[in-house]
Amino acid sequence: MEIEKFLEIAAKLKSVRRQGWVERGVRAPESSADHSWMVAVMALTLPFDGNRDKAVKMALLHDLAEAEVGDIITKENWPKEGRMHEKEKVAREREAMKEMLSGLDKNMAKELVSLWGEFSEGKTKEAVFVRDIDVAERLMQAHRYHRDGNFSKPLEGFWDEKAMGTIKSESIKTLVKRIIGEGQ
Amino acid sequence: MEIEKFLEIAAKLKSVRRQGWVERGVRAPESSADHSWMVAVMALTLPFDGNRDKAVKMALLHDLAEAEVGDIITKENWPKEGRMHEKEKVAREREAMKEMLSGLDKNMAKELVSLWGEFSEGKTKEAVFVRDIDVAERLMQAHRYHRDGNFSKPLEGFWDEKAMGTIKSESIKTLVKRIIGEGQ
Repeated sequence: MEIEKFLEIAAKLKSVRRQGWVERGVRAPESSADHSWMVAVMALTLPFDGNRDKAVKMALLHDLAEAEVGDIITKENWPKEGRMHEKEKVAREREAMKEMLSGLDKNMAKELVSLWGEFSEGKTKEAVFVRDIDVAERLMQAHRYHRDGNFSKPLEGFWDEKAMGTIKSESIKTLVKRIIGEGQ
Repeated sequence: MEIEKFLEIAAKLKSVRRQGWVERGVRAPESSADHSWMVAVMALTLPFDGNRDKAVKMALLHDLAEAEVGDIITKENWPKEGRMHEKEKVAREREAMKEMLSGLDKNMAKELVSLWGEFSEGKTKEAVFVRDIDVAERLMQAHRYHRDGNFSKPLEGFWDEKAMGTIKSESIKTLVKRIIGEGQ
């Protein structure tokens, strides 16, 4: 695969509609690229004592595989007949990432696949930070659609106790609670 | 301004429709956040011998002011009655950036305003690189809409000689020509 091909596939992320919104009847829902941009801006600006440049790159790429495989909701995230298991989704995304990035310089491709793998495993400081932001950004956007009445199925589940509990950082949790509290 | 306020304003970039597409009757045009994400991905992956981390941050932020002031087409870019001059647009954007970023840590705000200023001036290696990509990404997206028949006013002007001439890097120009050539 060449770099032109990589760019053409990556650009598709601008047209991937976030499935969580689609399934709840949100009109003109944001794209996965919209969400990824906002996660990257948060990774750039929220207080953080790790490697920020690394976190920003991880944020930019965290949903890139969706340009190839789409935005898949897993059984673990929202149980429903016919959904894929988280493990299978990650395997598919890993293949897609490897394939997509093969048009880039070898070292670059290796670095980016490894960054994405680190995010998926969620063990390092940067991965925990970006995964927290990934959830926080989703909650904040759910709350905006809710506030604007832009939904046909309820969105409150996005910021219930269980959802908030998946955010590990207390300061990010507090920030999200402040934002959601204000708008209600 | 507090960080919550900054995040709420920044998130608006996901809903700012790119005015160049709107004025040419493109259906469901991409947002400025979509475009910014793609510019950042290109800044991360295209060959570059400058400070890549800096270029990626610059790319992420280059249109952030539009979350506050909207996507303004200037007289210089597309002459038409009532359009603003480039100089006035940049001044407005600078004010918006300063205001928006004032909720962040002082040093962070200073760094980001300065990064954005560097982009606007277009003199450093990183600024030239990101400005080239900004144009290249626009041409490539114009070409996709053209290919898909998604327009009511012609889009060819986006990749004519004059437009291509604004890209300074020969390798980026060649890449864009290869991509556009393939799709025609």
